[in-house]
Amino acid sequence: MIPVKNDIETACKQVWAFAHRTPVLQSTLLNDLAGCEVFFKCENLQKMGAFKMRGALNAIGNLSDAHKKAGVVTHSSGNFGQAVALAAKNLGVTAYIVMPKNAPEVKKNAVKAYDGIITECESTLAARESTSQRIKEETGATFLHPSNDIDVILGNATSGVELLQDHPDLDVLMTPVGGGGLVAGTALAAHYFGKDCKVIGGEPFNADDAYRSLQSGKIETNETTDTIADGLRTHLGDKNFPIIKELVSEIIRVEEQEIIDALQLIWERMKIVIEPSCAVPFAALLREKDRFKNKKVGIILSGGNIDVKNLPF
Amino acid sequence: MIPVKNDIETACKQVWAFAHRTPVLQSTLLNDLAGCEVFFKCENLQKMGAFKMRGALNAIGNLSDAHKKAGVVTHSSGNFGQAVALAAKNLGVTAYIVMPKNAPEVKKNAVKAYDGIITECESTLAARESTSQRIKEETGATFLHPSNDIDVILGNATSGVELLQDHPDLDVLMTPVGGGGLVAGTALAAHYFGKDCKVIGGEPFNADDAYRSLQSGKIETNETTDTIADGLRTHLGDKNFPIIKELVSEIIRVEEQEIIDALQLIWERMKIVIEPSCAVPFAALLREKDRFKNKKVGIILSGGNIDVKNLPF
Repeated sequence: MIPVKNDIETACKQVWAFAHRTPVLQSTLLNDLAGCEVFFKCENLQKMGAFKMRGALNAIGNLSDAHKKAGVVTHSSGNFGQAVALAAKNLGVTAYIVMPKNAPEVKKNAVKAYDGIITECESTLAARESTSQRIKEETGATFLHPSNDIDVILGNATSGVELLQDHPDLDVLMTPVGGGGLVAGTALAAHYFGKDCKVIGGEPFNADDAYRSLQSGKIETNETTDTIADGLRTHLGDKNFPIIKELVSEIIRVEEQEIIDALQLIWERMKIVIEPSCAVPFAALLREKDRFKNKKVGIILSGGNIDVKNLPF
Repeated sequence: MIPVKNDIETACKQVWAFAHRTPVLQSTLLNDLAGCEVFFKCENLQKMGAFKMRGALNAIGNLSDAHKKAGVVTHSSGNFGQAVALAAKNLGVTAYIVMPKNAPEVKKNAVKAYDGIITECESTLAARESTSQRIKEETGATFLHPSNDIDVILGNATSGVELLQDHPDLDVLMTPVGGGGLVAGTALAAHYFGKDCKVIGGEPFNADDAYRSLQSGKIETNETTDTIADGLRTHLGDKNFPIIKELVSEIIRVEEQEIIDALQLIWERMKIVIEPSCAVPFAALLREKDRFKNKKVGIILSGGNIDVKNLPF
């Protein structure tokens, strides 16, 4: 069941009421290096610093009034917790964010700054899930999944829609692949708003579950996730995998050093702050640049939430 | 002799043919912190990473065909050398860039990448000036000054013009003050395109020549320039000082730690790479924030050329 074009248009209305229309940047030097024309869609410059704001806005915006009143709950140690807190604040909804006790203070403070109600738990997935479940039962709040939720995927699609509105003739759209919510949304955007625009994901060799899932035809998981791209350690879900299987052309895998090199290049040449996961599709493009020669390639730069005092280069 | 409005409009045509129209970014968190609405005009995202591209484009574009054929020469260890090389390349003009022998390789490589012809010299001002003079005599090239040149000032004005086109009701425009070319250009933009829009400069206490110049009414110099804001160590010139005296309301001075704090805030919250000089006006705003309460303040973020492997925070 692939969502229809109208679903995305509805999501655009929800998201555009509150999100930034992020700029699209280009660099002559990076074009020369890549041998093609690259259009960077800067979701690192989105509110709260990541595309996740879009999915959160759409998912919360689509709730019934009664569900909005009861609030939303998610568990997250990263960007999605901040996104849900800020999106909920914009929409006048209470957000319960379950975070591991050992989450960095800076992330807890960001959620608090957006008026999110934090419940701390042990740092296991089981503890996070059971705590979320308890809050859901106690408050009636709706649980939001960061990537395996159709409304989140549709919200994510709005970034690709904007990029294709600005540059309708892109040959390729690239995103990182973590939980699959961004690549699935972008694939929907390309399918309905592109002109024969392929979607290609980038993934670390060290967490290549999505690459293997496309090979095997079923959702694969990672035995180990030893990658600097900390946003890409999760695996696909039953809501986004059917979309990815149908609409994503392929996934290119990259080495850790290629991620770090691409990260540094984008910082130095584009003058923007991005997080390691965000550099993965550009690393994938550079790795296989012969195949993209003279093409027009859009890259969704997914986010910029990184500790600037602790850089990998 | 203050330039007229038409001079700026002519500069806009020259500059807009080649420069990026840089995005204007906002951050709710930084607005809350500053107690006013701040519009950041991102010249760090300009071609070659600084506003200096604008002045170079206008100065070279305004040369006669004969002068264009003979080329341009400047001496620079920083952004202006890169700007002249790239602007000249865009306009099909030869650029001779005099650089101190001990300039960082990365800066020399940037000039070379833009096809600039580098002549190395000793790292004294006298050596830089005499080398430039010799090239001028040998080649007939026109010497370009980075800040004390009316065409450069008019080119710089185009950033403020764009910001005021996007946000016509700004109460204040702020820039850093180094050689005076940016603040003078911005003051012209506010004078002709703003609605009662004040221009305020930011300057380090440790290189406060412009502050003292406005006090005394004549161009003052710095005895020492011990500031992290390495782009702001120079003093005003006879072309820009009359404009600054007439059109700049005041200059606010800031401490070194305030510059570093503002730098880190912009990196972390705005997700963009800026250089220390560029953080000075936001530091000035935060230092005196009570005076800007509920105002609309535009800040020209001047540039992003910093060694990302050697950060001050």
